[in-house]
Amino acid sequence: MIMYSSKKLKAPEHQVAGHSAKEGRLGPLVDGEGRFFKPFQRDFRGKNEDTFYEFFSSNKNAPNHIHGYFPSYQGTQVVEASNGSGKLPHIVLEDVVTGYLKPSIMDIKIGSRTWYPNISQEYFKKCMGKDRGTTSVSLGFRISGFKIFDHEESSYWMPDKKVVHGYNVDEARLALRKFVSSNSLADSIPDCAFASEIYGGPNGILAQLLELKAWFETQTLYHLYSSSVLMFYENESVLMKGGDDARARVKLIDFAHSFDGSGVIDHNFLGGLCSFIKLIQDILESSDNNNETNIFQFKNGH
Amino acid sequence: MIMYSSKKLKAPEHQVAGHSAKEGRLGPLVDGEGRFFKPFQRDFRGKNEDTFYEFFSSNKNAPNHIHGYFPSYQGTQVVEASNGSGKLPHIVLEDVVTGYLKPSIMDIKIGSRTWYPNISQEYFKKCMGKDRGTTSVSLGFRISGFKIFDHEESSYWMPDKKVVHGYNVDEARLALRKFVSSNSLADSIPDCAFASEIYGGPNGILAQLLELKAWFETQTLYHLYSSSVLMFYENESVLMKGGDDARARVKLIDFAHSFDGSGVIDHNFLGGLCSFIKLIQDILESSDNNNETNIFQFKNGH
Repeated sequence: MIMYSSKKLKAPEHQVAGHSAKEGRLGPLVDGEGRFFKPFQRDFRGKNEDTFYEFFSSNKNAPNHIHGYFPSYQGTQVVEASNGSGKLPHIVLEDVVTGYLKPSIMDIKIGSRTWYPNISQEYFKKCMGKDRGTTSVSLGFRISGFKIFDHEESSYWMPDKKVVHGYNVDEARLALRKFVSSNSLADSIPDCAFASEIYGGPNGILAQLLELKAWFETQTLYHLYSSSVLMFYENESVLMKGGDDARARVKLIDFAHSFDGSGVIDHNFLGGLCSFIKLIQDILESSDNNNETNIFQFKNGH
Repeated sequence: MIMYSSKKLKAPEHQVAGHSAKEGRLGPLVDGEGRFFKPFQRDFRGKNEDTFYEFFSSNKNAPNHIHGYFPSYQGTQVVEASNGSGKLPHIVLEDVVTGYLKPSIMDIKIGSRTWYPNISQEYFKKCMGKDRGTTSVSLGFRISGFKIFDHEESSYWMPDKKVVHGYNVDEARLALRKFVSSNSLADSIPDCAFASEIYGGPNGILAQLLELKAWFETQTLYHLYSSSVLMFYENESVLMKGGDDARARVKLIDFAHSFDGSGVIDHNFLGGLCSFIKLIQDILESSDNNNETNIFQFKNGH
């Protein structure tokens, strides 16, 4: 077991969903050198997630390019918990946004349902309430949280989680447009100026999502409930270098509710992923006609 | 409105799921000349299904090859109901198995959930109970009923619907194997002798399902709840002519719970369809190695 110094650990700057370590609560920590420490969740969930990472990271049945969509796993480590409750076991993962200066980030929980067979009636009701109360049922996914760098204000816009969880289909679609827009986030008509460079292209978000989709069409290793697609890109690059190195990336995270696929594909995840892909494709198609104009205007300060 | 004589109407010989007109109950009728009369279901459902067929049949946004996967619509007609309750409106459709002498038929209800937004708590509970009590939740689809022509016995095997609805994942997979097997249906190890000619090939079931899948990945016209894939083929051909003209076909049926897609793909149907496709692919792959041997044995009476 590798020992890390726990002295430098702090709450992640770019976390957009899930439990936060800020204000003395229990949440994940980062060491600023590329490692992300996720405290074991109570009951079976922490152990289940750790087991998922342990088995997946050495699973040769998942192709190499698919492994790249998951944070790399570096074992477990007992470190001082963020809430001052003493030393607790943490899962040590790659901090996927290390090296990003001004990332825009969005966490999208995939699947129309977050419950699964053989759960308590109480947990079923809780999940079902959230699934029906968000866009999970209607869209097949829900946005859990995001932060977008506002190029006009040179600051971040990060709406309250409760606002985000209350989004309907149109609001979720709007957020996906704002995520790749250059104009003021208060503006109701996003210009989608970065759509083609962030969502599009051979290495863009869409290409990565399609690669994941192809895998989910056949993989029966895992069923992932309440897992998320995390997508992010570097605004500093878009600002300074014309987007040549925006490093738009997709990572899958959160596996506390992952299970053996038992020979069946994860149709719940796949269906939601396809719906998410369709909305990204819609934005790319609608921005195709005016995208170059928008970039030109943006880069010239209009 | 075209008027059909209602004198010759009778219960369909090859119905495998849904309400049956036999024994004096209300159910669909056929005229033996290619027309299928489906009585309007009570409450909004009959009207909803008729509206679906009326709009879809003239919808130019659905490509021609996709229209071929739906029974053609021939309007509505008031005819004598099968249960003797007098004249009732019926939806007049193409009788898709007309011309098949010894069809094997399976009805597969697609989607992990049969409920949808804005329904009563009572209907939600009823649907959820069935979805959790069958393979809908686990597999993303459930087999609603089937009949398989048994080549050894020269008769049909059609298990009771209650037995079929009680299938677990393994039993559903087994039924899909038996559907394309030549050996006795009482045998626990189906030979899948017809898999490559019925499921496989450029015009087989799998190719048709993949064409539908491609459409469902982008179509936002309709969301189909409780709709079924009906698949069937001609055993007479397999028996007599070596399977050159087995006419393996996929049709989508049952649209009493179809709704406008509102710009979102039908991720519930698509996810279930992909899961069904994967099971068909599994059977084709596992039968690849021994299929020719099986056909040879079968044709030589072993």
